Amino acid sequence: MADYVIGIDGGGTSCRAALADRNGTLLGCGKSGASNILTDPDTALRHIAEAAELAFEDAGLTPDLSSASAILGLAGNNVGGAVGYVTERLPFARSQIVSDGVIALQGAIGDEDGAIGIVGTGTVYIIRSHGQFRSIAGWGFQVSDLGSGARLGQLALQETLLAFDRIRPMTPLCEAILAEFDNNPELIVDFARLAKPGDFGRQTPKVIDYARRGDETALRILHTGAAGIDEALDTVTALSGDKTKLCLLGGLAPLYPPYLAERHRLRLSEPRADAMTGAVELAVKAFPPGARMEACA
Amino acid sequence: MADYVIGIDGGGTSCRAALADRNGTLLGCGKSGASNILTDPDTALRHIAEAAELAFEDAGLTPDLSSASAILGLAGNNVGGAVGYVTERLPFARSQIVSDGVIALQGAIGDEDGAIGIVGTGTVYIIRSHGQFRSIAGWGFQVSDLGSGARLGQLALQETLLAFDRIRPMTPLCEAILAEFDNNPELIVDFARLAKPGDFGRQTPKVIDYARRGDETALRILHTGAAGIDEALDTVTALSGDKTKLCLLGGLAPLYPPYLAERHRLRLSEPRADAMTGAVELAVKAFPPGARMEACA
Repeated sequence: MADYVIGIDGGGTSCRAALADRNGTLLGCGKSGASNILTDPDTALRHIAEAAELAFEDAGLTPDLSSASAILGLAGNNVGGAVGYVTERLPFARSQIVSDGVIALQGAIGDEDGAIGIVGTGTVYIIRSHGQFRSIAGWGFQVSDLGSGARLGQLALQETLLAFDRIRPMTPLCEAILAEFDNNPELIVDFARLAKPGDFGRQTPKVIDYARRGDETALRILHTGAAGIDEALDTVTALSGDKTKLCLLGGLAPLYPPYLAERHRLRLSEPRADAMTGAVELAVKAFPPGARMEACA
Repeated sequence: MADYVIGIDGGGTSCRAALADRNGTLLGCGKSGASNILTDPDTALRHIAEAAELAFEDAGLTPDLSSASAILGLAGNNVGGAVGYVTERLPFARSQIVSDGVIALQGAIGDEDGAIGIVGTGTVYIIRSHGQFRSIAGWGFQVSDLGSGARLGQLALQETLLAFDRIRPMTPLCEAILAEFDNNPELIVDFARLAKPGDFGRQTPKVIDYARRGDETALRILHTGAAGIDEALDTVTALSGDKTKLCLLGGLAPLYPPYLAERHRLRLSEPRADAMTGAVELAVKAFPPGARMEACA
């Protein structure tokens, strides 16, 4: 019987799986729905199995999840109860749940020491130094995640109300946001009261768009976000050294470099692979062929 | 039959009433519970009547609410449905609901043109110019109210997490806040996720306390808050002129002047009276003796 490794990259919107042989040679990929183990562990379990089965099919194989050993990079991996519940119910021969940041770092920089900053709806930094992991920021938009999409969007709404009140200039960005809310500031307030990070984040593409056209407010928002990222990257550099690799990942990663301090901009490198590939690499290392018999015993 | 005027200052935590004769001479005061007409209009109605009855008793009179004409300054006065519901059910001979800001401004500066800034859990500015009112800010802590108690408290938690992550220095203020959350940043995050403005605001006394001792983080937070207030006061001055009265009211009003720009600090004057007194003054003006018969007809 052949056996396989599987790398899973699961999050709040989708779950991606890669199937590889024991040497890490990629055989097939699959994708399914949300796999948030905190908010809905049973759905997460179903989508994890579904993505893995699709990866088998993509490889031209009959799905046999019990023949595979898996590394799963999942948001919420630091919450003990959820991890225990999910681990017990996973369909793989052997499984290990790690943080989504750890597989992203492995994919981006490989086995070396170094660091990544994931700048999407939230912002988090992961450092590997002498094999030890450490994360910075990522506490959520209410009190953290400076520079994240959620914070930029929230700032855009704040700037719009400041412009409405004539405290700051009414620029085209503010006019566009006000128009979206029927020129009624009360509707912005109603929206903000209940908005989740992703809701705020949906204002961010507009900020980027108007910044490109030189909009003063949009540029101020991006400079504020970049300042928050610069400060965090100073700490990342202090912890990881300035000779190691540093990658920015996430939806806003392509946006920020022109706004960052030169000392960080010049250090950035392109990620070598994605998080799912990182999970496969970790699985190859975590489950060497010799370990199979014991684990199956 | 004698008749009276009543001034009501009602908000989320208490309702205060002042009874006066038709010349505005104060006869008695009463205080009861919350009177938020948006969240609980029936309780608000009960507490309004209770405070007014206590004012009659304080004056040595048998309560007779139907002999009084009232101005009620109530938060939420700009929400039509709530105002209609409450107005129809008020026990007074005649009633008019205005904003809590309007009675505060009347109390603080009297009949002149001028402006007030109310800096408490939220922040709002009210301007009277040629008899017309205008308000600025006050849209809530998520996207407005820079410098408010809620925003200062939220910043204090953010600074604490930045210090925990070594992005900014760990100062005694941050240590005190961390200790309050069992030195567990996750507990700060859990708190912030559900915190209401008043919950964040409860961190603010600590910020003030540590700022007095020279704490770098506390001072940074207060300077950030003061910068937001300075910016708003520039707009207030542009709208009201720099020759008119300007008062700061609210729980944080005594705190801010040393941190404000000199151009604003030198303009500030002490409020001449409180909001309840402002409501009485407005009631005397709104319900002159000659108008009584028509209104009762």
